[in-house]
Amino acid sequence: MEKSKKKFPVLEIFGPTVQGEGMVIGQKTMFVRTAGCDYSCSWCDSAFTWDGSAKDEIKRMTAEEIYEELITTGKDLFNHVTISGGNPALLKSLSELVDLLHNKGIKVALETQGSIWQDWFMEIDDLTLSPKPPSSGMKPNMGILDDIVHKLNDGSNDFSIKVVIFDLLDLSFAEDLHQRYPGVPFYLQVGNDQVNEEKDEQLIPDLISRYEWLIDQVMENNKLNQVRVLPQLHTYVWGNKRGV
Amino acid sequence: MEKSKKKFPVLEIFGPTVQGEGMVIGQKTMFVRTAGCDYSCSWCDSAFTWDGSAKDEIKRMTAEEIYEELITTGKDLFNHVTISGGNPALLKSLSELVDLLHNKGIKVALETQGSIWQDWFMEIDDLTLSPKPPSSGMKPNMGILDDIVHKLNDGSNDFSIKVVIFDLLDLSFAEDLHQRYPGVPFYLQVGNDQVNEEKDEQLIPDLISRYEWLIDQVMENNKLNQVRVLPQLHTYVWGNKRGV
Repeated sequence: MEKSKKKFPVLEIFGPTVQGEGMVIGQKTMFVRTAGCDYSCSWCDSAFTWDGSAKDEIKRMTAEEIYEELITTGKDLFNHVTISGGNPALLKSLSELVDLLHNKGIKVALETQGSIWQDWFMEIDDLTLSPKPPSSGMKPNMGILDDIVHKLNDGSNDFSIKVVIFDLLDLSFAEDLHQRYPGVPFYLQVGNDQVNEEKDEQLIPDLISRYEWLIDQVMENNKLNQVRVLPQLHTYVWGNKRGV
Repeated sequence: MEKSKKKFPVLEIFGPTVQGEGMVIGQKTMFVRTAGCDYSCSWCDSAFTWDGSAKDEIKRMTAEEIYEELITTGKDLFNHVTISGGNPALLKSLSELVDLLHNKGIKVALETQGSIWQDWFMEIDDLTLSPKPPSSGMKPNMGILDDIVHKLNDGSNDFSIKVVIFDLLDLSFAEDLHQRYPGVPFYLQVGNDQVNEEKDEQLIPDLISRYEWLIDQVMENNKLNQVRVLPQLHTYVWGNKRGV
């Protein structure tokens, strides 16, 4: 493959660590976090990717440079990379990175809210769509989401929908979504409403009790029989720390 | 399907709850726990299934009776059932239960150590083989395990291998197993060495720090790049309680 000069805004490259959420929870992976988002969720746990607070940390890197930093950081200790953001779907040419990683024998996961389609979604090994529920303050465009789910359903890639739940309104949003896309693997995730809490001894018991609340809600709801209910495992181990 | 008179030894039917471990972690499911095991692992968290301590609780139930109790307990709140033990693979005719559940539109997961083959394994939707590592005091028969993995690989069902890790010897056992069956989805699970601890405020931080230890070990091991590392989520929520 010819080297491209196209540069992508990157905020963090770290790992290997475990994926703490969703469809490949527990997977050993490296993370590439891109800067920039078309959303501004009230409870975003990576607001530094779009609120300007980390703008001096953004590096503009080619796919080759990202791969080189992955190797410098992760050595021979990985063969899975998760691209997260922000919203990496803003980057039209990101297929260059996905292709390069695939050429090196590395699997690629992607996390995006499903507000923008990119053809390279079809190349992603583990694709998570996470439409944002009412508590985020955002309002998903259901037409665009329908189109994305339709295209992915026609393809053969592994994808899932993941909804973060803070309250009963969010749960009702998730219920509708699950009925709208009945065949799609569906994950509910405990919301973290204390993304700035640094004291793990306060944070973790609270997150566990929120997980128990969410389990209770789902167990008594016969419209949510097929779902998987998960916490963010990394918060149990590392609290709200970045880069782990 | 004609009703069978065949009876199975059942110790617990409970749920719906979340599957706390392995390949479908977080899945909303009912549990059917059968009595009896060909192993006696030193750290077994369900030793009551084989050590005689709960022998008066064993009910002998037909597949129909098990299904009826699932409905009485779980009402219309489930469409996934996990069969665990003990070792349910001891029960040659358990296909009667699996078929009945499938006929009702219910998916079936199974957990077994991989010491005995049954043809009905091919019907299981989510099959977990959990060969026991050295710390268990057991010694897996690798010929039997090879044969089981070979048959499942030829089938089209979703199966995975899960190894519980207490120490570095267990990790080395897991490493060998992962290399022996390179294409099989591979899960490492934190061992719980305090299955009788009732104080959650002692148990949970300790289990989380054991999870972090296991993550650290796997992250620095280039023979374990493809694995998933998970805790037993239910212990974070409910400690060592039974029936949740």
